[in-house]
Amino acid sequence: MAEEYTKKIKFGILGCAEIARKVSRAITLSPNSQLYAVASRSIEKAKNFASANGFPSTAKIYGSYEELLDDPDVDAVYAPLPTSLHLKWAVKVAEKKKHLLLEKPVALDVKEFDVIVKACEDNGVQFMDGTMWMHNPRTLKMREFLDDSEKFGELRSVHSIFTFSAGDDFLKNDIRVKPDLDALGALGDVGWYCIRSILWVADYELPKTVTALRGPIFNNSRVILACGASLQWEDGKVATFQASFLTNLTMDVTALGTNGTLHLRDFVIPFQETSGTFTFASKSGFEELVTGWVPLPSEHIIPTDLPQEARMVQEFSSLVLSIKESGSQPEKKWPSISRKTQFVLDAVKRSIDQGFETIEIFS
Amino acid sequence: MAEEYTKKIKFGILGCAEIARKVSRAITLSPNSQLYAVASRSIEKAKNFASANGFPSTAKIYGSYEELLDDPDVDAVYAPLPTSLHLKWAVKVAEKKKHLLLEKPVALDVKEFDVIVKACEDNGVQFMDGTMWMHNPRTLKMREFLDDSEKFGELRSVHSIFTFSAGDDFLKNDIRVKPDLDALGALGDVGWYCIRSILWVADYELPKTVTALRGPIFNNSRVILACGASLQWEDGKVATFQASFLTNLTMDVTALGTNGTLHLRDFVIPFQETSGTFTFASKSGFEELVTGWVPLPSEHIIPTDLPQEARMVQEFSSLVLSIKESGSQPEKKWPSISRKTQFVLDAVKRSIDQGFETIEIFS
Repeated sequence: MAEEYTKKIKFGILGCAEIARKVSRAITLSPNSQLYAVASRSIEKAKNFASANGFPSTAKIYGSYEELLDDPDVDAVYAPLPTSLHLKWAVKVAEKKKHLLLEKPVALDVKEFDVIVKACEDNGVQFMDGTMWMHNPRTLKMREFLDDSEKFGELRSVHSIFTFSAGDDFLKNDIRVKPDLDALGALGDVGWYCIRSILWVADYELPKTVTALRGPIFNNSRVILACGASLQWEDGKVATFQASFLTNLTMDVTALGTNGTLHLRDFVIPFQETSGTFTFASKSGFEELVTGWVPLPSEHIIPTDLPQEARMVQEFSSLVLSIKESGSQPEKKWPSISRKTQFVLDAVKRSIDQGFETIEIFS
Repeated sequence: MAEEYTKKIKFGILGCAEIARKVSRAITLSPNSQLYAVASRSIEKAKNFASANGFPSTAKIYGSYEELLDDPDVDAVYAPLPTSLHLKWAVKVAEKKKHLLLEKPVALDVKEFDVIVKACEDNGVQFMDGTMWMHNPRTLKMREFLDDSEKFGELRSVHSIFTFSAGDDFLKNDIRVKPDLDALGALGDVGWYCIRSILWVADYELPKTVTALRGPIFNNSRVILACGASLQWEDGKVATFQASFLTNLTMDVTALGTNGTLHLRDFVIPFQETSGTFTFASKSGFEELVTGWVPLPSEHIIPTDLPQEARMVQEFSSLVLSIKESGSQPEKKWPSISRKTQFVLDAVKRSIDQGFETIEIFS
């Protein structure tokens, strides 16, 4: 279904990170959004990026982030910067009254993130992080299953894995292994998604305690290349995750309820762009003599009208339009979810730094 | 392919546990094995069991375990007794020179198990535990993938889950929740399989440390109803498992290598008796712009000629026949695997009892 919007949110992109290519396409695909400007510290790089990524010929090309932020026609900024630069630039974006779509991890820690959120609140701008899978229609469909007290029952445990085999070049040169850029390494990158998936399954209830698993792997600069943690809730729920740059691409979420099981093997990036699948089992039992399962788990295929990242942009722009056109308040759900994710991430980091001590969460 | 054996191993079954029904069928299906005798403390019960479970009319029915063990024609004993009785009866079986197929967990702890193994060695009888999935042809096929240094690469982590929703009656009355019967509860029952699957993936290399996860659940008699652990190896490999009587039936094994991922969702009891499936991914990457996976994981379907439990019986009987007919020595692989499983299980138990302390493994 094509929808026509009279108003489109004008996006400016800060920097030419690899992920900005995908989000540029998403902005183009999103019916209420428009690629409007890109900035890089090198104007040549910005020019090349714009022409390679579907920017219209009228797009503004800037040789500095400041110039882009000074453009009064930029409504919203997508910021795929190294984490160590988030605090500085996110605050500037907000102070320039631009709405902010920020890549994950949102900050180096919650303290930094709270400064970003305050700047957004003080300036009345929408905040959202770039966790694309949240916006896949599959995610909504899975929520229905998890909320079904009969089919799924009460949530008891969640297990999440996100790993990819980064390769030699990445492990030497990528910003995600540099202590001065993405200091949180695999925890901030793939671990962010694991933690988010666990919180999502748990309907954003924060755990009571977080304990990092023994055996994390660091590079020579003590940036995390692989780690895991276990989480425990007040009511007895538990969760584990495994995040790594060192094993084959894997994206699992397994949620166990008293009556049901949800399985997902491609939660961050669906296997295919046009549909998403998941497996759900409810009240699983055995054949007579325990020779097979009855009923078998069922597979569900959810068509995806727009790629999940385009739906993210669309959702973000629709909130921004409401603020601009109807004087709505920014939607607080999104910064709240980001903050909880960062909060748990911080606790895992602290547990690792403190020799796998159990960290109590006081939210 | 039907094979004709002139000699069949004569089985005696100790007790009429529910699982003995499945193994009786397996003995009948196994071409080198024969249902020969059953004993119960109640001869009525034994009679009913025999007539309901395909015993020939000539089968011996005994009103005590001792009588069955005194029958000189019994070659092998299948013992599905509560764990607390294993030490006593397993040793008696061995001393009567009967070969021993023993249900899991093999003992309350390794110390007990070592007494059982010594009795088997001293009497020259074969020992095997009743972990059926080990004998599924799928298990061999998956081993090929895990051993492929190109497709799978180096093993880095394993994650295993076995849970089922036991229900009120089980949680009140089953031997697996009784401290004087199966004192190891969910750890000894479903946890046994998780630990075995991890060791199997790791080619039976013992971990260096074992740390129970916080948040185990106990009943009023402090029998474990749900627990988990993380394991670490000398070379940096890690593993986690989750075992529970309190969530929907789930049987996952996920093995992560530097180059490949193995996924299995029904490792203990395959979804269907006649074939087993697993998913394998190798060198998984993304489409341009990270909009999908290339290549996609592949599903493998392995036909099962005989049910896995019948293959277990067949393998056991074939070892027994070699000993009886050709004077072979008992195969030490099986007690060795059982011992390692029990060893790790003991460490998890100790970690739980010691407030989630990390337990060093000295094998």
